[in-house]
Amino acid sequence: MKITQLATKTTKNIPADETAKNAKLLLQAGYIHKEMAGVYDLLPLGWKVAENIKQIVREEMNAIGGNEMLMSSLQRKDVWSKTDRWDDKQVDVWFRTQLKNGSELGLGWSHEEPITDMMINHISSYKDLPRYVYQFQNKLRNELRAKSGIMRGREFTMKDLYSYSDSQESHQTFYDSCIEAYHRIFQRLGIGEQTYFTYASGGAFTKYSHEFQTICEAGEDIIYVHEQKKLAINEEALNDEVLGELGVKKEDLVKKKAAEVGNIFSFGGTKSEQLGLYFTDKEGQRQPVILGSYGIGITRLIGVITEMLSDDKGLVWPAQISPYLVYLAEIDQPDQADIICQKLTEAGISYLHDERDIRPGNKFADADLLGFPYRVVISGRSLEAGGVEFKERTSSQAETKTIDEVIDLIKAKS
Amino acid sequence: MKITQLATKTTKNIPADETAKNAKLLLQAGYIHKEMAGVYDLLPLGWKVAENIKQIVREEMNAIGGNEMLMSSLQRKDVWSKTDRWDDKQVDVWFRTQLKNGSELGLGWSHEEPITDMMINHISSYKDLPRYVYQFQNKLRNELRAKSGIMRGREFTMKDLYSYSDSQESHQTFYDSCIEAYHRIFQRLGIGEQTYFTYASGGAFTKYSHEFQTICEAGEDIIYVHEQKKLAINEEALNDEVLGELGVKKEDLVKKKAAEVGNIFSFGGTKSEQLGLYFTDKEGQRQPVILGSYGIGITRLIGVITEMLSDDKGLVWPAQISPYLVYLAEIDQPDQADIICQKLTEAGISYLHDERDIRPGNKFADADLLGFPYRVVISGRSLEAGGVEFKERTSSQAETKTIDEVIDLIKAKS
Repeated sequence: MKITQLATKTTKNIPADETAKNAKLLLQAGYIHKEMAGVYDLLPLGWKVAENIKQIVREEMNAIGGNEMLMSSLQRKDVWSKTDRWDDKQVDVWFRTQLKNGSELGLGWSHEEPITDMMINHISSYKDLPRYVYQFQNKLRNELRAKSGIMRGREFTMKDLYSYSDSQESHQTFYDSCIEAYHRIFQRLGIGEQTYFTYASGGAFTKYSHEFQTICEAGEDIIYVHEQKKLAINEEALNDEVLGELGVKKEDLVKKKAAEVGNIFSFGGTKSEQLGLYFTDKEGQRQPVILGSYGIGITRLIGVITEMLSDDKGLVWPAQISPYLVYLAEIDQPDQADIICQKLTEAGISYLHDERDIRPGNKFADADLLGFPYRVVISGRSLEAGGVEFKERTSSQAETKTIDEVIDLIKAKS
Repeated sequence: MKITQLATKTTKNIPADETAKNAKLLLQAGYIHKEMAGVYDLLPLGWKVAENIKQIVREEMNAIGGNEMLMSSLQRKDVWSKTDRWDDKQVDVWFRTQLKNGSELGLGWSHEEPITDMMINHISSYKDLPRYVYQFQNKLRNELRAKSGIMRGREFTMKDLYSYSDSQESHQTFYDSCIEAYHRIFQRLGIGEQTYFTYASGGAFTKYSHEFQTICEAGEDIIYVHEQKKLAINEEALNDEVLGELGVKKEDLVKKKAAEVGNIFSFGGTKSEQLGLYFTDKEGQRQPVILGSYGIGITRLIGVITEMLSDDKGLVWPAQISPYLVYLAEIDQPDQADIICQKLTEAGISYLHDERDIRPGNKFADADLLGFPYRVVISGRSLEAGGVEFKERTSSQAETKTIDEVIDLIKAKS
C-alpha cells in the first residue's frame, strides 16, 4: 500500500495525561487513538497488529477443538445474580446501563455466566461433551484507575475460551492441551522465552489457577521465577506449601516484574450448579458440567510487546505480527519503486510504500517509529551502488542488495 | 469438521416471546442465542455466516481504498455535545453508563462524531486527503421495541465507513464508487436482484440520502420500486419534486415492503465545522473537511437473507456465505466417510460430517434445517447404487454420483 492511502500519520502530539511508554509510542506512530484513560481506538496499523495476533491465537484454539463465536456485550442481571457476581461488592468493575423500561443491564466484563447459561440449550447428555467455545470479545471494565496504556484498559480485546467437560479427567486433558497451545502462541508471538507458566491463587474452586506471565518492567504483577524449571510463582501464591508441592527452593527463585498475558482457570462443577447446566451421564445420573476458562489479553499483548521490544527510535515488531513486512522508502525513483512494489506483491511480501515528497531523513525516522522489520530504500544513490539499500529494523547497518536478493532474504527469514 | 465437535445443536425450544421468522429459524438451527429482546449471540454457525458476509464487504471496501480499524464502544459526552447529538431529545437510542468518578459515557450507537474527532490528529493539509476509514462495529442502540429478530437489534454488527474529502467533487467521486461497491456486495451476497438503490430523505445536509433496500415482507420500510430503471423511492421521500427530478411517473412505481441493508449519507462540511476538522487547501485557505458515511448492517443481512431464502424445512444459504458447503450425512460407513472427508479437504470444500448414531431421518432434517447448499449421503445403499447420494438444498431430487463427480460439480458451481 502507498503511505498516502494510509489514513493515519505519525505525530509528536501526545495527550498530556499519557504516562505509559507503550501508549505513548503507539500514539506517536498512529497505531492507536486515545478516547479517554484506558480507552483506545485501534487505528489501521494497530488494528492490523491486533488481527495478526488474533489469527495466531485463533489457529491454536481451533487446533485444540475450539469453536469461535461471539457473545453480546449487553448482559442480563438475572444470569449474574445466580452466581452472586452482579453485586458491586463482589465484582467492582461493572459498567451498567438500562433499557427504556428501566431494566438494568450489565456490559460484559467477562462471559463465563452468559456462555454457561447459553450452553444449557446445547448440553444435556454425556454425548454432548466435551465442548469448547471461544470468542474475541470487547470487554468493558470500570477500572478505578487506568494508567498502564493499553496494558490495562477499560475497554480491551480478550480471547476467552470456555471448556465444558463430563469429568475431572476429561477437563484436565483439555486444560493441559490448552497450556501447550498457550506456549505455542507466545512462542509464535516472539515472546516465548520471556513468558513463564506461573502458579497463582486458585480462588474458591481450585488450589491454583495458572497464569502466563511475561517479564516486563511495566507489568503490574510480581512473580518469582525458577529459571531451570521454566516456571514461576505469583507473589500472591508464594508460600511454603506451594514451594513444597512444586519441589522448588525459595533461594532458587528470582523476583521479577511481569505482565499477565494469559490465564487459565478451573471452576469445577460449582458454576454449572449455580446456573443449572447439568448433563446425564452414561449411568443415567444427572451431573453438573465441569467448567474451565482460558483467557488471553489481545490488546494487552500489543502493549507488552511494545514495552519489551521497542527502542529509543520507536516500535519494533516481530515479522509475524507487524502490520507490513517492508517499509519502502522511495527517494525520487517512482518507476523503480513501481517495479519493486510489483515484485514484492508477487512474492507475497506486504509493504508500505512511502512515496511522499518529504526529506529522506523524515522517511527514515517514520520507518524507525513504525517499526516494520525491514526497510528498503530506493534512490539514485542506491541504484548507483547497485540496487536498493536494505536494513533490518534492529540493525544499524544498511547494505546494498538487489531487490531479488532482498526478497530471498525476507523469505528465508519467515 | 465432525458434527460432534460442533458446540451447538438444533433445537425445538424457541423462546416464547420470539415472533420474528428469521430469529425463530436461526434459534432452531442453533445459529444464534437470544439474550433478551433485540440482543442475540452469534453461535459458531451464525458467527461463520457473519464472518463470510464481513469478508465480502471487507474486500469491496478495501478495493475502493478503505482502511479497516476499530473504534471504542465507550464514547465521550463532549464529542457528541459539539454536534448536539448527546441529548436524548436529539438521539433517542443512547445507552449510557458512567465511570467510577461519575463521568457520564455513551455506548456507541454510531461513530461519525468520534471518528471525525479522531481524524483531527491525522488531517491538516489537502495532502492528507482523501481518507477512507471503516470498521465492523458492535453498535448498541436502546430501541424502545425490538421485534424483528436480528433485523433490528439493540446490539448488532454494522460496517460503517467514513470518507473525508477536500472538495464536493472529490467527495462525489468516492460516493459514486461506494454505490458501485455496494451493488457488487449485494450481488455477491446473492440478493442483488432484489436490492434497490433507493432515494431517501436527506436530513439537514443534503437533499437526498441513499439507501439500499432489499424487498422483504419482514422489512420495516415501504419503498416504491421503478422496475425498469432499477431504482426505488422511500415512502418518506416520495413527492412530486423527487419524481420530477428522477424523471419517473408515479403510476410506474410499485409499492413494496423492504429492509434497509445499506445507506450512504453526505454530511457536507457541517459536522467537520462543529467538531473542528479543518484542512489547509492549496491556496493556504482553511476549509472544513467534507464528510460522508456509508453503512451496511451485517447482522441485519443475516436476518434478511434468512427471511428471503429459507423454506418450510429450514435455512437456505447461498454458497458464498454458508458456514459449510457440504452436509455429509454418514450412515454406518465410517471408513468411506473418512475417504470422502479427505477428498473434500484436499479440494478445499468445507463440510460438516454428521457421524452421530441417530436415525437417518433426523440427519436429513438437520441437514435441511442448517441449510448448507449441498447434502452428501454415504450409506450402504448409496454404495450399492454406485457412490454417494447428492442433493442440493433447494432441490427435492437426490442423485447418485461418485464423490469425484460431486467435487467437480461443486467446484463448477462456485
